[in-house]
Amino acid sequence: MADYESDNIFAKILRGDLPAHTVYEDDAALAFMDVMPRADGHVLVIPKAPSRNLLEMELADLGPLFVAVQKVARAVKAGLGAEGMTIQQFNESAGGQVVFHTHVHLLPRWTDVPLRPHTGQMETQEVLAAHAEKIRAALAE
Amino acid sequence: MADYESDNIFAKILRGDLPAHTVYEDDAALAFMDVMPRADGHVLVIPKAPSRNLLEMELADLGPLFVAVQKVARAVKAGLGAEGMTIQQFNESAGGQVVFHTHVHLLPRWTDVPLRPHTGQMETQEVLAAHAEKIRAALAE
Repeated sequence: MADYESDNIFAKILRGDLPAHTVYEDDAALAFMDVMPRADGHVLVIPKAPSRNLLEMELADLGPLFVAVQKVARAVKAGLGAEGMTIQQFNESAGGQVVFHTHVHLLPRWTDVPLRPHTGQMETQEVLAAHAEKIRAALAE
Repeated sequence: MADYESDNIFAKILRGDLPAHTVYEDDAALAFMDVMPRADGHVLVIPKAPSRNLLEMELADLGPLFVAVQKVARAVKAGLGAEGMTIQQFNESAGGQVVFHTHVHLLPRWTDVPLRPHTGQMETQEVLAAHAEKIRAALAE
């Protein structure tokens, strides 16, 4: 895969070299809590196959990724009791991308509650674990 | 399809009852210029099958939609000479959704150029037509 660097943090999470609050996994995708959430329950869904971003993904990998996105997004919305869901996907630095392994942001939303700015502030492990548990419970139903 | 109202403006565009600056069409998807662009070259990609939003789509429709998203996003980036691409997809009013037929926003990006706010200001037909032509030319290559 051109322009893919395997030392990015999501590749490390996929290899088990970094911990994550995982909420879902299948043959094609992994979903885990964003450690700097812009909304309560902010989840990332990533394809297991290496790719720099969505524009570089293999055609055959697109469907399985977005089947996982839909499945997890429904569970995030149900588990967090959200009213809506904003999905964002950034490509290249100018497009907002910071980690260069394709990822999809799932941001649960509530009426009149804006997304929090990117502060670089890490959420506590306790809060991330609690949100992950709610999402896993919704997926198990 | 539960909660789908066929009088939304994207359903009207699909039926040919409203005009649009179309850039791409296949069996599953249609792509056209957003008339209130938040960036030059802002395109919407919609599935032809009726669905309220991504959370409500049929599983089989997800892959073909995102194959079209990737194809059009590459052409928007190339045609507009963009440096990146921000992809957004809104579900329910709390999630930012205004038109209740599933749609994916493709926003070409340039370094240090923020997205324009939602002003409700319509872009001129001349500008939309010129951007559409650049994207169609990139798709034809």
